[in-house]
Amino acid sequence: MPRPITLFTGQWADLPFEEVARLASGWGYDGLEIACWGDHLDPWQADDDGYVQGKLDLLEKYGLSVYAISNHLKGQAVCDDPIDARHEAILSAKVWGDGDPEGVRQRAAERMKDTARAAAAFGVDVVTGFTGSSTWHMLYSFPPNDFDAIERGYDEFAERWGPIIDVYDAEGVKFALEVHPTEIAYDFVTTRKSLDALGNRPGFGINLDPSHFAHQFLDTAAFAIEFADRIYHVHVKDSRRFLDGRSSILGGHLNFGQPQRGWDFVSPGHGDVDFEAFFRALNRIGYAGPLSIEWEDSGMDREWGAQDALAFVRRTDFAPSAVAFDAAMQRDA
Amino acid sequence: MPRPITLFTGQWADLPFEEVARLASGWGYDGLEIACWGDHLDPWQADDDGYVQGKLDLLEKYGLSVYAISNHLKGQAVCDDPIDARHEAILSAKVWGDGDPEGVRQRAAERMKDTARAAAAFGVDVVTGFTGSSTWHMLYSFPPNDFDAIERGYDEFAERWGPIIDVYDAEGVKFALEVHPTEIAYDFVTTRKSLDALGNRPGFGINLDPSHFAHQFLDTAAFAIEFADRIYHVHVKDSRRFLDGRSSILGGHLNFGQPQRGWDFVSPGHGDVDFEAFFRALNRIGYAGPLSIEWEDSGMDREWGAQDALAFVRRTDFAPSAVAFDAAMQRDA
Amino acid sequence: MPRPITLFTGQWADLPFEEVARLASGWGYDGLEIACWGDHLDPWQADDDGYVQGKLDLLEKYGLSVYAISNHLKGQAVCDDPIDARHEAILSAKVWGDGDPEGVRQRAAERMKDTARAAAAFGVDVVTGFTGSSTWHMLYSFPPNDFDAIERGYDEFAERWGPIIDVYDAEGVKFALEVHPTEIAYDFVTTRKSLDALGNRPGFGINLDPSHFAHQFLDTAAFAIEFADRIYHVHVKDSRRFLDGRSSILGGHLNFGQPQRGWDFVSPGHGDVDFEAFFRALNRIGYAGPLSIEWEDSGMDREWGAQDALAFVRRTDFAPSAVAFDAAMQRDA
Amino acid sequence: MPRPITLFTGQWADLPFEEVARLASGWGYDGLEIACWGDHLDPWQADDDGYVQGKLDLLEKYGLSVYAISNHLKGQAVCDDPIDARHEAILSAKVWGDGDPEGVRQRAAERMKDTARAAAAFGVDVVTGFTGSSTWHMLYSFPPNDFDAIERGYDEFAERWGPIIDVYDAEGVKFALEVHPTEIAYDFVTTRKSLDALGNRPGFGINLDPSHFAHQFLDTAAFAIEFADRIYHVHVKDSRRFLDGRSSILGGHLNFGQPQRGWDFVSPGHGDVDFEAFFRALNRIGYAGPLSIEWEDSGMDREWGAQDALAFVRRTDFAPSAVAFDAAMQRDA
Amino acid sequence: MPRPITLFTGQWADLPFEEVARLASGWGYDGLEIACWGDHLDPWQADDDGYVQGKLDLLEKYGLSVYAISNHLKGQAVCDDPIDARHEAILSAKVWGDGDPEGVRQRAAERMKDTARAAAAFGVDVVTGFTGSSTWHMLYSFPPNDFDAIERGYDEFAERWGPIIDVYDAEGVKFALEVHPTEIAYDFVTTRKSLDALGNRPGFGINLDPSHFAHQFLDTAAFAIEFADRIYHVHVKDSRRFLDGRSSILGGHLNFGQPQRGWDFVSPGHGDVDFEAFFRALNRIGYAGPLSIEWEDSGMDREWGAQDALAFVRRTDFAPSAVAFDAAMQRDA
Amino acid sequence: MPRPITLFTGQWADLPFEEVARLASGWGYDGLEIACWGDHLDPWQADDDGYVQGKLDLLEKYGLSVYAISNHLKGQAVCDDPIDARHEAILSAKVWGDGDPEGVRQRAAERMKDTARAAAAFGVDVVTGFTGSSTWHMLYSFPPNDFDAIERGYDEFAERWGPIIDVYDAEGVKFALEVHPTEIAYDFVTTRKSLDALGNRPGFGINLDPSHFAHQFLDTAAFAIEFADRIYHVHVKDSRRFLDGRSSILGGHLNFGQPQRGWDFVSPGHGDVDFEAFFRALNRIGYAGPLSIEWEDSGMDREWGAQDALAFVRRTDFAPSAVAFDAAMQRDA
Repeated sequence: MPRPITLFTGQWADLPFEEVARLASGWGYDGLEIACWGDHLDPWQADDDGYVQGKLDLLEKYGLSVYAISNHLKGQAVCDDPIDARHEAILSAKVWGDGDPEGVRQRAAERMKDTARAAAAFGVDVVTGFTGSSTWHMLYSFPPNDFDAIERGYDEFAERWGPIIDVYDAEGVKFALEVHPTEIAYDFVTTRKSLDALGNRPGFGINLDPSHFAHQFLDTAAFAIEFADRIYHVHVKDSRRFLDGRSSILGGHLNFGQPQRGWDFVSPGHGDVDFEAFFRALNRIGYAGPLSIEWEDSGMDREWGAQDALAFVRRTDFAPSAVAFDAAMQRDA
Repeated sequence: MPRPITLFTGQWADLPFEEVARLASGWGYDGLEIACWGDHLDPWQADDDGYVQGKLDLLEKYGLSVYAISNHLKGQAVCDDPIDARHEAILSAKVWGDGDPEGVRQRAAERMKDTARAAAAFGVDVVTGFTGSSTWHMLYSFPPNDFDAIERGYDEFAERWGPIIDVYDAEGVKFALEVHPTEIAYDFVTTRKSLDALGNRPGFGINLDPSHFAHQFLDTAAFAIEFADRIYHVHVKDSRRFLDGRSSILGGHLNFGQPQRGWDFVSPGHGDVDFEAFFRALNRIGYAGPLSIEWEDSGMDREWGAQDALAFVRRTDFAPSAVAFDAAMQRDA
Repeated sequence: MPRPITLFTGQWADLPFEEVARLASGWGYDGLEIACWGDHLDPWQADDDGYVQGKLDLLEKYGLSVYAISNHLKGQAVCDDPIDARHEAILSAKVWGDGDPEGVRQRAAERMKDTARAAAAFGVDVVTGFTGSSTWHMLYSFPPNDFDAIERGYDEFAERWGPIIDVYDAEGVKFALEVHPTEIAYDFVTTRKSLDALGNRPGFGINLDPSHFAHQFLDTAAFAIEFADRIYHVHVKDSRRFLDGRSSILGGHLNFGQPQRGWDFVSPGHGDVDFEAFFRALNRIGYAGPLSIEWEDSGMDREWGAQDALAFVRRTDFAPSAVAFDAAMQRDA
Repeated sequence: MPRPITLFTGQWADLPFEEVARLASGWGYDGLEIACWGDHLDPWQADDDGYVQGKLDLLEKYGLSVYAISNHLKGQAVCDDPIDARHEAILSAKVWGDGDPEGVRQRAAERMKDTARAAAAFGVDVVTGFTGSSTWHMLYSFPPNDFDAIERGYDEFAERWGPIIDVYDAEGVKFALEVHPTEIAYDFVTTRKSLDALGNRPGFGINLDPSHFAHQFLDTAAFAIEFADRIYHVHVKDSRRFLDGRSSILGGHLNFGQPQRGWDFVSPGHGDVDFEAFFRALNRIGYAGPLSIEWEDSGMDREWGAQDALAFVRRTDFAPSAVAFDAAMQRDA
Repeated sequence: MPRPITLFTGQWADLPFEEVARLASGWGYDGLEIACWGDHLDPWQADDDGYVQGKLDLLEKYGLSVYAISNHLKGQAVCDDPIDARHEAILSAKVWGDGDPEGVRQRAAERMKDTARAAAAFGVDVVTGFTGSSTWHMLYSFPPNDFDAIERGYDEFAERWGPIIDVYDAEGVKFALEVHPTEIAYDFVTTRKSLDALGNRPGFGINLDPSHFAHQFLDTAAFAIEFADRIYHVHVKDSRRFLDGRSSILGGHLNFGQPQRGWDFVSPGHGDVDFEAFFRALNRIGYAGPLSIEWEDSGMDREWGAQDALAFVRRTDFAPSAVAFDAAMQRDA
Repeated sequence: MPRPITLFTGQWADLPFEEVARLASGWGYDGLEIACWGDHLDPWQADDDGYVQGKLDLLEKYGLSVYAISNHLKGQAVCDDPIDARHEAILSAKVWGDGDPEGVRQRAAERMKDTARAAAAFGVDVVTGFTGSSTWHMLYSFPPNDFDAIERGYDEFAERWGPIIDVYDAEGVKFALEVHPTEIAYDFVTTRKSLDALGNRPGFGINLDPSHFAHQFLDTAAFAIEFADRIYHVHVKDSRRFLDGRSSILGGHLNFGQPQRGWDFVSPGHGDVDFEAFFRALNRIGYAGPLSIEWEDSGMDREWGAQDALAFVRRTDFAPSAVAFDAAMQRDA
């Protein structure tokens, strides 16, 4: 049986939730990964049975399943340093409050716990999201880093996220970090360190999104094999490098979609991700969860793209073999 | 709204015009770019209202639009030097006359003016074509060129084409040179010089055909950006390099389709042109005109190919984005 | 008219013959290349008219044609040295007998003659298969080869296969060796030598399978051109290299499907074979026989793959051109 | 006349200045680019004539010239945000003071003015260095940047560096920013913006170091052409990418020399910089200043490397042509 | 014994012959390939014994040998069409005469015969040079070529050069065409055709210059193998491609040395020619003649370059093996 | 201190030992790796004190050290299957005896023990060599392997080599297998298995020769890191791929030096081995043993090559860094 294909609603939060559900259903998606922003899902209302039931009824109306809930934006605030205007812009007034960094971090952490409870209320066992990072701004070591400070960043991450994961464990929900620049884990080395910092507890795993790997020249398929037992959720998103000697791979403080960028997000199948190798790796590790299309391409019509992406995944995500070829050829007449 | 897809009739001039229209319509083309050879269109009859109306009626019968008229063959004779048997083979007797080079050039120039009038009569505002070149034969500088002579070639081009473009301006029609080896412009440098030679007047622009760029290792998308305001028409045609150390990229005096050639034309999507990058560039510059499939592949059945090419363009030419992704993600619940 | 597409039944011998026929027919295949193992075809019963008619009736029931019969496994035993447990595992008890190598070789040779007779009984004029090789184990010259011994291997091949091909000639059937590592011919040089050893007699030709070429870095299209008049049958099968500096291109005594292999077989269109170049070469040499899909991919569901492969070939195998483009453009109005 | 080759003393500050001079002279260097740290040069003593003369005498003793003075470390503190322990580690106590960020920035700015005066005292007309950046930490736009804030970073840069450059102008000295990640300019786009922010005043230019370009996939030769009139000084330093699908191009919070890094600095000629193209570009723009070897390679013996680097530059940096080849071939006997 | 290394004097014709001899000798060259232009060699004076002896004395004075004489410029005029101002610029007044094309061609042909006689007088058995071509200007087939006309070009070549080669045969001298764009032969196909046109007579062979192959993507080593028995002389010259998507591989009517060119000549070892593979091929075919450095690089100082090139060839041109390794390892103690 | 550079005498066994010593010393080698064939070293005479002293005196006369003794040829016979004429050709009559395979294997095993004793007598602690393999001929799994048989091959290897290594341990000598096709270990996977089969005992390690890795597309540097504590000796030898679509990477039963081979051995620095990465890896693992040049290049003069190779290694094998760059830059004035 093929893996279900879902649409991540995060990039559609300008539309009402029902409109997104109606579109996704019409295009043939199997379900949604619901973002906790816009009117799509408010985890603070998850203890309101009517609110939850209303959402579930609406999904049933459109024949859609939910395999994961996303709360990237608040997760980002849990560890970040500095906390500044960029966070104010993406957090609700309740979480931002007076903007005192430590207060923001703690309120964000509480919301992440609530999200576990909301997921449980929805009957969903994975929450995807970000963690933030207190050391990301030290990426390029100049002025020279005190590398002990980098190590302390993992300690701080563990101190802040340990109690959150306790709630996830209690609720029977797993948290899946989207490995991503600006987060505590963004490549092989930092993912290993992050998992180690939390003692490799099962409550904390990975939402594997290959679009953040391609521009780092990382091999997503190898990553899936390496961290096989912690791949809890998968994003289908692509990125493409545009390296002509005049555009930096760093992106260069340019917004997505600006032509001088050295790389950008593109619709799945239009970029540098080797999805066939990636899906073969998912077959090998036995990943049976959803493939969630996080659609973002600043050069393509969004609705055209969401359909193109679905068709691309349907024709690329094949099931593994159940036959041993040697056996079939073993004995002649 | 997607761009209309047309079929260029030049490679189908062995078939009667109506047969081409019937086929193109049946395959799902939106329209035609009509060539002024075979029985497809005779610009000398454009002042015959009945002739024009007959063509228009036929197009309406098959539900086809016309966005451009092509007159490549006569345009070639306007500037070329030498004028020889190769021209006699592609020009009508009326234009060739006694074959005296200067007479040929002047009669060809008059026909190009007539073509503007014919286009106006058809309600079409773009004529595609060639210009010829008095310096092409000096491509490789041995015996060493007098590079001032190269410069004088642009002057001569301007002298011959200025009066032609005057007629185009008067008729409200634009001329679109297909940038192409053997023409006055065939790459970035020569296109810039050609436009400058005519004072960058708006009546003279470009019919951008990527198949002539790929074997020169030129970047069609970058060309579209560079000359954005002069892209008046677009051909969809492809070429592929076959470089194994024994075939020269020059082509080597071999006819198209001969196996030892270092490059050859192939059906769109089967060659080295990066159409996705090209179409994204067209989105960026806001090009809304037709994508005209000029089909030529000496190794593929023509009718199979014309359908394959149409399907290729339909699935590759997507509309640009109308959404700002940041806005969608900006505020959580 | 396009080439017929058949399914090679060798990798489906775990299923009853009729089940394979039913599946292939339902997916849209034009015919079968029937393997002489499992219950698919027993050449020893080919003189039983009822047996033959029963097979033919079944094929007619499912609307399938047969263009070739395969007897790879017994062919392998004709020249191989050593003959050991690996052969015992793939040969029937009647051919294996007491396992004395020379006896095995001679019985296998007789079965290859019977296969020619079976093909004739079926009205089929090509048998595909292997030859074995007495020198394959000397591939890497250490301890240093006596290269005269290599030459003698071709002599032995000719001595053993000459009498077999006599039967093929008598029956009006051709034998098509699948050029393949472990056979007497596996690349350009050894194919040339093998054909020469048999005096280039027309009864012995090639079953061209590109999957054995890609991991050797050989150009299948060039091979088709080089041996144009001996290409009697074509397999559509693919292979992909996985070279990351830690996996050897040699395969490393690992079974197909093991992740550390440096290359492996994959479903057509998913590997390194350039099928477009290959099919263009087949057009050039006028090959009009079947394209027989030998499906093997240890990472993909077999039934999904057989359909994916068929669709891939249908959209990739186009007919050659019947139009001279110059003629079409030759004369303007 | 070839360009002089100097050794940048920054990576040798663990050795006394005279020892560095002795070594460099012995290896055959033409001069030094003196760093303002260790005991190499103290700009606060530049008004002490005896101090200056002592340095000059020492250089004369070893036959070395000085073409530039470096003050990277204090320049970094002028614009940086945040100012933290990393700065404390590289600044003198006098500049760090109580560590209040704005105070640190202002004291650092004053030291940069003193460095201009020191340079003048030494008869040197170029100071190389860094600027810092208040927006570097916003490199990857997540949480989403307010891109107006990026623009304001250039304004702040101009406000802080304008008065410094006033002193440089007064002293007849130019400041040459080493375009580098963590600085206000690190690629084509940001360099253009930085120069524009200062009104393209001649007192502020570039110290072009290709090692910071190679891992960004930037073309140093093209950069030299693009900013030809602002190339005031050149570093010879190299970097190499190690991209195996498991190491990120970002470097990954790993110290230089750690094996999992996706790129690292290496001795000139051992990395990805195309020095021949770079030096040809310098020839084209007429750059006649020093080539200053900034030697850093955590895998090579430093003294071996400094000699290897000098030999590499001597054999790679050729003078441009003074002959027109056509003229030479123009007329036969 | 290594092959002798000579300097081709063509690019040094602005200097007096003795000055060139003095320089070449001082740098360590073994000899000269003397060009028939400037004051270097006048074939019309070859019947003046004193003139010849004077040259020979001068060579002896500087310890230089001569292995070949070059007469490229007049050879070019033998077949060219058109004959125009470019030829006037490179021919002496005696050859140009009144400029009537046929007269120019015939006088040039006579000078090529004289050159054979001059070579014989000098005791030299190879003359290098060009042939011109009556069809070069039809390189790109638009307007469409009459390909029979291309074939007739080879006939004309044979008619004009046959009588010249008769003289070479009589004098015991061979003519070596430098395979080169603008000549009758410039790649594999055209070389084969040219040799065939002259009946593969031994008097006409090849001066193999790899710099004209690299930008055509041709494999010089394979060419040497293919035409092994006609390689009479070898030039050491290099070229480099600069393909960034904006520069055409065609060169684009730009003079050598202009920055927008897609390829240009560079000093040996600085370009795309694989000299190691080339020299190994020369070893394989047993070529024992000179390696003649034709030095041309518009971005490098000529005298620096001539020395750099000599050093490059000395360290790259090794002798073939005379040992069979198997024999050495064959028997243990 | 740099690593000593030695010459492996195996490819010079056609010359008397003293002649090889004289040549190597004259070229500047630091020592020899002496092969046990030709008259170079006879392990059966190692208990003759006069024989040993004679060799040592001769080495002292030429100022050469010995770091290793090679006995590849007899080691090969220990595990090989089949044992045939190829072994007879490289073994002495005493070892070959009557040619009964098991007797040959056992006599060869005894000689390998003697070699340990000979090494001890010479004061050398490393013996390099081969092991042979009973499963090499099953490299390509057709007829399909019984993969248990492959596993049993490692058991047999352990049974045969365990007692040999016991003697090495007793003598204080290590055996270093040259990882190589046709041996029990030839890539990462098989090396791991081989070491495991012997319980990872320290007496059995690796002679790392990168020339056997490059044509397998293996990364020698990564191998050095992976098996760091078992790298007991290093060969400097190179190989180059010649893949043009017509030559198989398998080598194709062609002798070294034949032009159609897909790869061949070449002099160090002339092939595909990345020696800089390899030597950096050796620095990282702290390998301080010899770099032993095993010179083999069928296209280059042997004596020229031995000198070229020595010069190549001298300029490429640099010492690691002893400086922490951060410390040097840490504190400004």
